[in-house]
Amino acid sequence: MSSFERREITGFSNPTVKYLRSLREKKHRKREGKFLAEGLRLLTDARECGKLPETLVMAAKRDAHPLLDELEAAVAGAGGEIIETTPDILTKITGKDNPQTVAGVFAEFDTSLSSLDRSQGPIWMVAQALRDPGNLGTMLRTCDAVGAGGLILIDDCADPFSVEAVRASMGAVFTQQIGRATWDEFVPWLRGGAGQLVAASLRDAVDYRGAPYSAPCFVFVGNESRGLPEAYEDECDLRVTMPMKGRADSLNAAVAGAVLAYEVLASQ
Amino acid sequence: MSSFERREITGFSNPTVKYLRSLREKKHRKREGKFLAEGLRLLTDARECGKLPETLVMAAKRDAHPLLDELEAAVAGAGGEIIETTPDILTKITGKDNPQTVAGVFAEFDTSLSSLDRSQGPIWMVAQALRDPGNLGTMLRTCDAVGAGGLILIDDCADPFSVEAVRASMGAVFTQQIGRATWDEFVPWLRGGAGQLVAASLRDAVDYRGAPYSAPCFVFVGNESRGLPEAYEDECDLRVTMPMKGRADSLNAAVAGAVLAYEVLASQ
Repeated sequence: MSSFERREITGFSNPTVKYLRSLREKKHRKREGKFLAEGLRLLTDARECGKLPETLVMAAKRDAHPLLDELEAAVAGAGGEIIETTPDILTKITGKDNPQTVAGVFAEFDTSLSSLDRSQGPIWMVAQALRDPGNLGTMLRTCDAVGAGGLILIDDCADPFSVEAVRASMGAVFTQQIGRATWDEFVPWLRGGAGQLVAASLRDAVDYRGAPYSAPCFVFVGNESRGLPEAYEDECDLRVTMPMKGRADSLNAAVAGAVLAYEVLASQ
Repeated sequence: MSSFERREITGFSNPTVKYLRSLREKKHRKREGKFLAEGLRLLTDARECGKLPETLVMAAKRDAHPLLDELEAAVAGAGGEIIETTPDILTKITGKDNPQTVAGVFAEFDTSLSSLDRSQGPIWMVAQALRDPGNLGTMLRTCDAVGAGGLILIDDCADPFSVEAVRASMGAVFTQQIGRATWDEFVPWLRGGAGQLVAASLRDAVDYRGAPYSAPCFVFVGNESRGLPEAYEDECDLRVTMPMKGRADSLNAAVAGAVLAYEVLASQ
């Protein structure tokens, strides 16, 4: 093993444990500009995307794993901090019943619209007032699957850096671009370049199958309860309708976005 | 207002409150054979499907609503129990931050395979070892949207009658048939009638777009972490592959099922 410094923490009341645990709450993440990600697979995905945690927290007495060794060496090589702790404390930090053997603290990414490169993907997903961090993470995961450029969050959405969203994204939080903006900021940005804004809608819409999608296509999904505001639908370049054969008039937001995104992908 | 009896409960320690609250736990639901559903919209959906709660719990000082009056009259007319309580207690019962003004206790439905009528829909969804009740409810909601016959749960799945699953189903728990079985029970049942078993798979598979689907088509989705066991995939009549353009090799289970179900629907 190399000679870099490594701290051991065994007490629940240790200030570092309290600090790490506090990152599960949005106000602390926002103040610190940091977030937590857990699990060897996810942290390896991050590393392979060039994103290393500033702090790596590992369970003592864990099973050895070559990927974990590589991760540890990379973090140490970049001047990061390595902490060993008990599985119980790791569970307390991540709040997960069956704890992973490793977690990392990352600096939050820039999510301004000006940081986005729309040429990076022919599909983008856009969500408005999405409240559920699980839906948000699932949409990031779908973005990865369809080869999207990223996810843009409009108005007051769940936090993409929450533990739940990061977990549901299955690593896509590290591979996808993420933007956050108000509607009034988003529209000029969108119209400042190529881009077709498409939403599922019940009015004045064409069948979503074989609709005239064009790249880059921005697939727009609304709030879980209320859907998209009418004025936002009006701004769309294309409104499409999906079959609703049953009693309900809508799908889960992440499901609707995925069915639509896969249709756009098939059209390209 | 009619003259049927109505109980008022104002104490948190009331045994009825404890009983209702206990139905949030699986072991109590299983023992009692009852489950909770909340919200006027969901309970109205249930009523319109001919399913009435045995007990209706309403918040005192709620806003009047004609659908609530109809619901109350229907429950009373069927000999059900009506309870009025405080919003705080209703919150405690359902465990939801922004409480609904009404909740109901329903008898669990028969979920044996022999209770299912496969002729009721050209599409069915089948999930194996699905662990997340939110995914389960979302799949029921998708079933409703594609006009499916129902959802069949194989092996050890989350409970379709959990508060989270019922909530995520947006009422589809009342409109869709639900089956529960082991794999060894399911296969003979499936092969005892018409039915094509289809799964997304990475091996020996054809493109999911335009694949030769046939009704009734059983769309088969595996566990969130492990996917389907190889032997289960082998039993499938058709294995299809969906594009995965990114780093991940799978979608969220409910998303994968929905994209596939919408493709089957479009082929019909």
